[in-house]
Amino acid sequence: MVGSAVMPALWAHLLGAYDEDSLATLERALDPAVRISHGPELPAQPAFDLLVAGRPSTEALASSPRLRTLLIPYAGLPERTRTLLRERPQIAVHNLHHNAGAAAELAAALLLCAAKFLVPLDRALRAGDWSPRYRPNPSLLLGGKRAVVLGYGAIGRRVAAFCCGLDMEVAAIRRRPAPAPATSSVSVHGPEALSDLLTDATAVVVALPLTEKTRGLLGETALACLPRESVVVNVGRGAVIDETALFTRLQDGRIRAAGLDVWYCYPKSEAQRTCTRPGTLPFEELENVVLSPHRGGALGMAEAERARMRALATSLNAAARGEEIPHRVDVAEGY
Amino acid sequence: MVGSAVMPALWAHLLGAYDEDSLATLERALDPAVRISHGPELPAQPAFDLLVAGRPSTEALASSPRLRTLLIPYAGLPERTRTLLRERPQIAVHNLHHNAGAAAELAAALLLCAAKFLVPLDRALRAGDWSPRYRPNPSLLLGGKRAVVLGYGAIGRRVAAFCCGLDMEVAAIRRRPAPAPATSSVSVHGPEALSDLLTDATAVVVALPLTEKTRGLLGETALACLPRESVVVNVGRGAVIDETALFTRLQDGRIRAAGLDVWYCYPKSEAQRTCTRPGTLPFEELENVVLSPHRGGALGMAEAERARMRALATSLNAAARGEEIPHRVDVAEGY
Repeated sequence: MVGSAVMPALWAHLLGAYDEDSLATLERALDPAVRISHGPELPAQPAFDLLVAGRPSTEALASSPRLRTLLIPYAGLPERTRTLLRERPQIAVHNLHHNAGAAAELAAALLLCAAKFLVPLDRALRAGDWSPRYRPNPSLLLGGKRAVVLGYGAIGRRVAAFCCGLDMEVAAIRRRPAPAPATSSVSVHGPEALSDLLTDATAVVVALPLTEKTRGLLGETALACLPRESVVVNVGRGAVIDETALFTRLQDGRIRAAGLDVWYCYPKSEAQRTCTRPGTLPFEELENVVLSPHRGGALGMAEAERARMRALATSLNAAARGEEIPHRVDVAEGY
Repeated sequence: MVGSAVMPALWAHLLGAYDEDSLATLERALDPAVRISHGPELPAQPAFDLLVAGRPSTEALASSPRLRTLLIPYAGLPERTRTLLRERPQIAVHNLHHNAGAAAELAAALLLCAAKFLVPLDRALRAGDWSPRYRPNPSLLLGGKRAVVLGYGAIGRRVAAFCCGLDMEVAAIRRRPAPAPATSSVSVHGPEALSDLLTDATAVVVALPLTEKTRGLLGETALACLPRESVVVNVGRGAVIDETALFTRLQDGRIRAAGLDVWYCYPKSEAQRTCTRPGTLPFEELENVVLSPHRGGALGMAEAERARMRALATSLNAAARGEEIPHRVDVAEGY
């Protein structure tokens, strides 16, 4: 693209490897005024206005004198990126929320799979063992009970709607409480209501970003409010829930079950991908936890990747037109 | 009870073993006009009006000259019971539907667990293996897609509401189509619409009883209508779906996934409970099936057992008052 005769209104560089299907989806949805380059390396004469990257290097952020926008092609602000951006206030940061539907469906799946103990039931029946059918059943009934949704953004709203479909009474917590849409039966509260709401919560779903304010939000004190007949789901970030407090309560049966997509330890290299325990404590030994390898972002799901590219096009088109780019990230707040 | 001085309006015998908690729940909810006896044997001088049993013997049905009502304490009419009742048209048959909420939640759990491939993801991560995170993701997105619910009774209506909560477009099929409540976005169709609806169904949930009309309803022809990106759930009865047609399509990937609570083979004795494959074909070797040991009825779940006892009291009280007993079973139709 760089040899284009007409100067485009916006040059965006996509840092990383993008497959042909993704690029074709993106190109189809882009305005003619947007020109893109892409690849794991920076272009030879970097004069891009916008960089698409989640974890850009210092060099990448400094390479183009025209760079004013960093577009992280998913939800969240990695800590290292945040540190670099704090020193560069001239660069605005934006997220993509294309995967909120997939993340909310995963939260729903983890909630139900954990509440109904499907994983150990499946394992037994695969071995021809029906005996759990005839034993006391630890499953939780959810209908008519309370669900507390932490975080009421693009994911949390969908989770709340799904819990309403299960005939649960739904309370959501967000930093800035605001009334839910008039058609919704969801009650929306500020963070100060947390302990009260947890006291009779049967389901707790965490859909929060990780910030100074959310780190350890569900610690020993908050988790102690939960009844024994409760199930905890996390599709936000692992560190929002204190690892030791969660593990010991699940181990002791003071929380009935959990479904976790986000963790305390991640593979740090390709070699580690097949041999990394997800916690410093042995969650993998607990029967009452459903373990999911951080797939809320629908990584590798062809349909979600196309949605990501269409959302990226929407943001790039907005930037080229001088309109507001969706999903601005507050670097000071961390999300 | 049998020595009671005042003749009760209704004597009900509960055939089988009932625990103290269940009996206490029942007694609390019963009208004084109802007297009950219980136990695995028939009473010495059987003059009960109503028998509570799922699979009564010929002797049990013939023992009391006053017997006019058989109350099966769950949903469904076992084939052997049906055969016996056909010869005794003077005995009316009723079901309990106390567990519809539990069965619908299990259907929802199986749908999401299968669509998101949670079982193999959990198995891998328990072994420290995150590699599925980095591979193409076979998960199905459900939001915005069509769900077809077969059977629109107590379970099917709840499943439909839950699918609406997932933002699916929901079509239900029932023998006697009737408009859904005005507040519902579910479309209700007769059986003749089946093939058309399956053609673009992403989720199919079977919540049908087993009758001559439903046996094999989802056979080779119907399953051939389904797109490859579809997931099949069965919480009705195994034989509603042809075993070979379902197995081969799951094995070949012509159906993406399935979640099954009802089966083709069941343990026939206590000894067989730990060594009975659920099908004549090896479903237990398929990664894309979630196997559940027929727990839709919430067997052994304390909360559901209490709901069963309260529903039983409602039916017995109605019988004692001469009112209509809920959930009459049509013995000729088989449900």
